[in-house]
Amino acid sequence: MSRHFTEESENIRLEMFMDAIMSIIITILVLEFKVPEEPFSSNGDLLSFIHHLLPSFFSYGVSFMTIIALWIDHHFLFRKINKADIRFVFLNFLFILFLSPIPFTTALAGRNYTNPYAVALVAINYFLMGTCFSALWRFAVVKKMIPDNKLKDWFFKRDMILSNVGALVLLASIPLAFVSTYISFVLFILVVLMHLLKHFFR
Amino acid sequence: MSRHFTEESENIRLEMFMDAIMSIIITILVLEFKVPEEPFSSNGDLLSFIHHLLPSFFSYGVSFMTIIALWIDHHFLFRKINKADIRFVFLNFLFILFLSPIPFTTALAGRNYTNPYAVALVAINYFLMGTCFSALWRFAVVKKMIPDNKLKDWFFKRDMILSNVGALVLLASIPLAFVSTYISFVLFILVVLMHLLKHFFR
Amino acid sequence: MSRHFTEESENIRLEMFMDAIMSIIITILVLEFKVPEEPFSSNGDLLSFIHHLLPSFFSYGVSFMTIIALWIDHHFLFRKINKADIRFVFLNFLFILFLSPIPFTTALAGRNYTNPYAVALVAINYFLMGTCFSALWRFAVVKKMIPDNKLKDWFFKRDMILSNVGALVLLASIPLAFVSTYISFVLFILVVLMHLLKHFFR
Amino acid sequence: MSRHFTEESENIRLEMFMDAIMSIIITILVLEFKVPEEPFSSNGDLLSFIHHLLPSFFSYGVSFMTIIALWIDHHFLFRKINKADIRFVFLNFLFILFLSPIPFTTALAGRNYTNPYAVALVAINYFLMGTCFSALWRFAVVKKMIPDNKLKDWFFKRDMILSNVGALVLLASIPLAFVSTYISFVLFILVVLMHLLKHFFR
Repeated sequence: MSRHFTEESENIRLEMFMDAIMSIIITILVLEFKVPEEPFSSNGDLLSFIHHLLPSFFSYGVSFMTIIALWIDHHFLFRKINKADIRFVFLNFLFILFLSPIPFTTALAGRNYTNPYAVALVAINYFLMGTCFSALWRFAVVKKMIPDNKLKDWFFKRDMILSNVGALVLLASIPLAFVSTYISFVLFILVVLMHLLKHFFR
Repeated sequence: MSRHFTEESENIRLEMFMDAIMSIIITILVLEFKVPEEPFSSNGDLLSFIHHLLPSFFSYGVSFMTIIALWIDHHFLFRKINKADIRFVFLNFLFILFLSPIPFTTALAGRNYTNPYAVALVAINYFLMGTCFSALWRFAVVKKMIPDNKLKDWFFKRDMILSNVGALVLLASIPLAFVSTYISFVLFILVVLMHLLKHFFR
Repeated sequence: MSRHFTEESENIRLEMFMDAIMSIIITILVLEFKVPEEPFSSNGDLLSFIHHLLPSFFSYGVSFMTIIALWIDHHFLFRKINKADIRFVFLNFLFILFLSPIPFTTALAGRNYTNPYAVALVAINYFLMGTCFSALWRFAVVKKMIPDNKLKDWFFKRDMILSNVGALVLLASIPLAFVSTYISFVLFILVVLMHLLKHFFR
Repeated sequence: MSRHFTEESENIRLEMFMDAIMSIIITILVLEFKVPEEPFSSNGDLLSFIHHLLPSFFSYGVSFMTIIALWIDHHFLFRKINKADIRFVFLNFLFILFLSPIPFTTALAGRNYTNPYAVALVAINYFLMGTCFSALWRFAVVKKMIPDNKLKDWFFKRDMILSNVGALVLLASIPLAFVSTYISFVLFILVVLMHLLKHFFR
């Protein structure tokens, strides 16, 4: 009974645990912005401090939107599932394993936005997270955790395809960081916008 | 079915996610108070350390009350809504996007309370957050997400007006920080008190 | 309808928000233990680092137990309440306002455990938090938020009295920190043990 | 009625509180990875920074998996319980008391992975946490909080035995850190894999 997370109440608990972790990571992102403990000696110093943070704000914004997009998709996936099993639970935690370092890789890429290794690292992180999420969808389909009538939904198929397209674009953004880190950032934004905007075309 | 967050259970999930984020931000605020790792060498040093923190405590208190006021209003808004849609979800996340930097802008303004740029920055942050919250109310009204009988409630109309008034005062507090940062702080307190105290006049 | 938090679902939401904040503060406490980023050069250095942290561990333990005791009591209070109002909500947030600085005052007292001002500060914090919690009980009783049959329960009366006794002992621990900070720490432990152990005598 | 956490709704609240704390600790782990505030001056510097972090990533991974394994087991334990009492609540908080320092001991062992004291400390922490969790199972059995038919389940007995075996191996890993810290890390991984993989053999 309890061994396979088959009861609906268990799905809810799992989703709540995932929600808690996602809400914490999304707010922890902002802890990377450290305010100097001493007051700035002049307006110029403060403005230059803010100016220096701009790439970090940008990097923060991309990760913020990415986690929001994943939360919405994760939510829709769980709406469609009518049972789960322990392997699905493990896949969820694998997803969390790749989600957790986002505050770290985001800050690293924000502060070193022209460094290809730093940007490639956040690209790898996004790619692993996205791939893991695609695997969650695929697993749910293969294991027939989703009722047949929902599987035939055109929008469901489209979202699965977009999920794979997104993962491929993120994969491409890893080597492209060594051509120009700006290309990678543009690709990050394209992927997150694709995931967010698809919800308006249903 | 699941595409528009129309089920009540979905509203609850969204509200819980928002609650989780608000509870984390309200507690993360306090992480900006760093205790020196070495013990103070004298009572005088410790007292001077505490004395230096007073403006930061004040700034913290304003942000704490602001988030509490927003939580209460957010709670009342969700009590009135009987359905939602994906755009309403996005507006909620836009609200969170402006809520998240509050620990950063609060600490910056607390440690640089006489610096007009630092105080204008937190004013901009409050303004965007407040405006976004007003937009949530307006959206819920325009999209008829609130039953008619609740819309006609006098207190509902009053709260919508106060929400707009608050946003306007916060808008004014941005340039006024360059006249005197104290004026801005007084306006912040007036706005938050207005939002908190209105609940006693129903 | 929604104006007074009178529905049971609203009490649950408030309690969940309070629970979220308490769970965050209890875990944030541990963030005050900073691990040096560089490896220690010898076993002796590491042992001396741990040794230096012992008073902080002790201070952490007291605050940890205090929050646990408050969570249990808060839980029992909410179990007894069958309705609430907006003032009760505000009292809860006043309680949170005094709970939030606990990670800060705990770390300050842990690292400066012989400094009377540091220990008096955490004592003031405990006292305000405890008093606020006593006020919550009193408010719930005076406003008849608790059904009569529960009010007559002997254990209920005992817990209210202990809550006041605890607040008084914490009040005494403030000036006594200037006699010896160890007296204050002993009083903190007595109060928290009293609150925890009372549950075994029912 | 409310005195013994005997209602199902009370178990749910306790489990949610435990879930909240576990979700926070699992995400707080990652805060130990500090990104230098200044950009790296060269690719080499950044790569060497990442290289230096590898043992910390490894230590992080072990703790991450350990908490996940505990969450799953904790979840299964609560699924089986049909009532609780105040002592069970206290045991849960004792478990949390030993869970909370994990971010600290994990970071210490990661940055000082060849230092026997640092690794012994995290081993002690794992051992106390594991023992406390075993005690939770035992308490639930002895106090007949689990229905008889579930107690006779072979997998239930196996999991209790594995829980004790895991605690014993962790106990052995404490002195073995002084032979070689690598032995301890291997034992940590064996224990966590045992706890995770057992779910596939049901």
